Amino acid sequence: MTHPIEIKALVFDVFGTVVDWRNGVASHTAAFLQRHAPNLDAFEFADAWRREYSPSMEEIRSARRPYVRLDVLHRENLLKVLERSGITGVADAEIDALNLAWHHLDPWPEVVEALGRLKRRFIIAPLSNGNIRLMVDMAKRAGLPWDAILGAEVVRAYKPSPQVYSETVDILALEPAELCLVAAHNSDLAAARRQGLSTAFVLRPTEHGAQQKTDLAAEQAWDFVVNDLNELANRLGC
Amino acid sequence: MTHPIEIKALVFDVFGTVVDWRNGVASHTAAFLQRHAPNLDAFEFADAWRREYSPSMEEIRSARRPYVRLDVLHRENLLKVLERSGITGVADAEIDALNLAWHHLDPWPEVVEALGRLKRRFIIAPLSNGNIRLMVDMAKRAGLPWDAILGAEVVRAYKPSPQVYSETVDILALEPAELCLVAAHNSDLAAARRQGLSTAFVLRPTEHGAQQKTDLAAEQAWDFVVNDLNELANRLGC
Repeated sequence: MTHPIEIKALVFDVFGTVVDWRNGVASHTAAFLQRHAPNLDAFEFADAWRREYSPSMEEIRSARRPYVRLDVLHRENLLKVLERSGITGVADAEIDALNLAWHHLDPWPEVVEALGRLKRRFIIAPLSNGNIRLMVDMAKRAGLPWDAILGAEVVRAYKPSPQVYSETVDILALEPAELCLVAAHNSDLAAARRQGLSTAFVLRPTEHGAQQKTDLAAEQAWDFVVNDLNELANRLGC
Repeated sequence: MTHPIEIKALVFDVFGTVVDWRNGVASHTAAFLQRHAPNLDAFEFADAWRREYSPSMEEIRSARRPYVRLDVLHRENLLKVLERSGITGVADAEIDALNLAWHHLDPWPEVVEALGRLKRRFIIAPLSNGNIRLMVDMAKRAGLPWDAILGAEVVRAYKPSPQVYSETVDILALEPAELCLVAAHNSDLAAARRQGLSTAFVLRPTEHGAQQKTDLAAEQAWDFVVNDLNELANRLGC
């Protein structure tokens, strides 16, 4: 595959693409559940919390609600899941601490090495719906060598709203095709492609656990389709 | 000096505090002047360009003009200085290239080492009027290990407008005093202190050349007053 447009920057979806949110949230939640609801499964709790993610952003994408950062949505969604699970009487400080689960997720195994390789040739930054402080805490803990933190909070909108991609192109002073979105989700890549970005699909077949049924293959002819970020670095000649 | 409030993040003024803009711009401009106006002094040209900096931002601070990023203001200011210098007929691409002088400035000698030390204990980020792409290009070239790029473009306002400091506190989810502005300019620190931030003054006595007359001493009792960033790292126990 030849690429007449030279890619100059790579932006990354993060939850699922760069980090393993499901194992991380389940692990962070286990001690809490042990104290408050020992019969609940931590993976089911993580899945339930994550199921509220997209609907909560949809309120903002549809302009029914002004932008608030993801930490705020995560906390509201956590309260819903706790209530539904019958967990009551938890102190605010403990809820705040649990909400930080999303700040402390581990990357997939090859990520730190691969980002180091990609950073030598390209500007690299997250383009996540996670807010800046969340991304900073995650990067410092995991050693993710981002050049900048881009994404929802910088443009005050949530993916897949088109301005998240187009305003990021503008901030980086690039032609759209010079910016490549790297993501494990076909829908994210489709939205980026509609704004003219280049696209790289990375397969993460266990993001949702062993029974995952979505995003197991490229649904369009993305510019790159790879099994991990080191393969992307190879393909880009890093 | 004891600090009952624990500082958790350091944000840095950049032009003058982290990088030596005057030598950098003069050096980047010299070849251009050699071609177009060999009798002009590169330092005088750099000073003239920089003199347009604050007035051009004042249009935006006063809300007479909506926010545009600093690359745009730098280019407009460059056109003014070229016209005043009687330099005409320069191709757009050459003006664009000259405007990138501000993306390619060298840090003061201790900066890279000191930021590496400070990064182990604190979130570190620029809080500059420079735009994100400018800061990214500068950091990649010089090896500045920022955790994030904060500043004017993230909040769409220019220092010393109060919201630049207060919205950055909010983005980092800190109490104001947990965030420390590091700057070589008393006026920047005064504006940060008015929003409750902690303050560190770093002496840069040759920012404006050997004859510098401003910012040669702390004009208030700032929380820290240091001769360079390694001394700040020492004081903060890094």
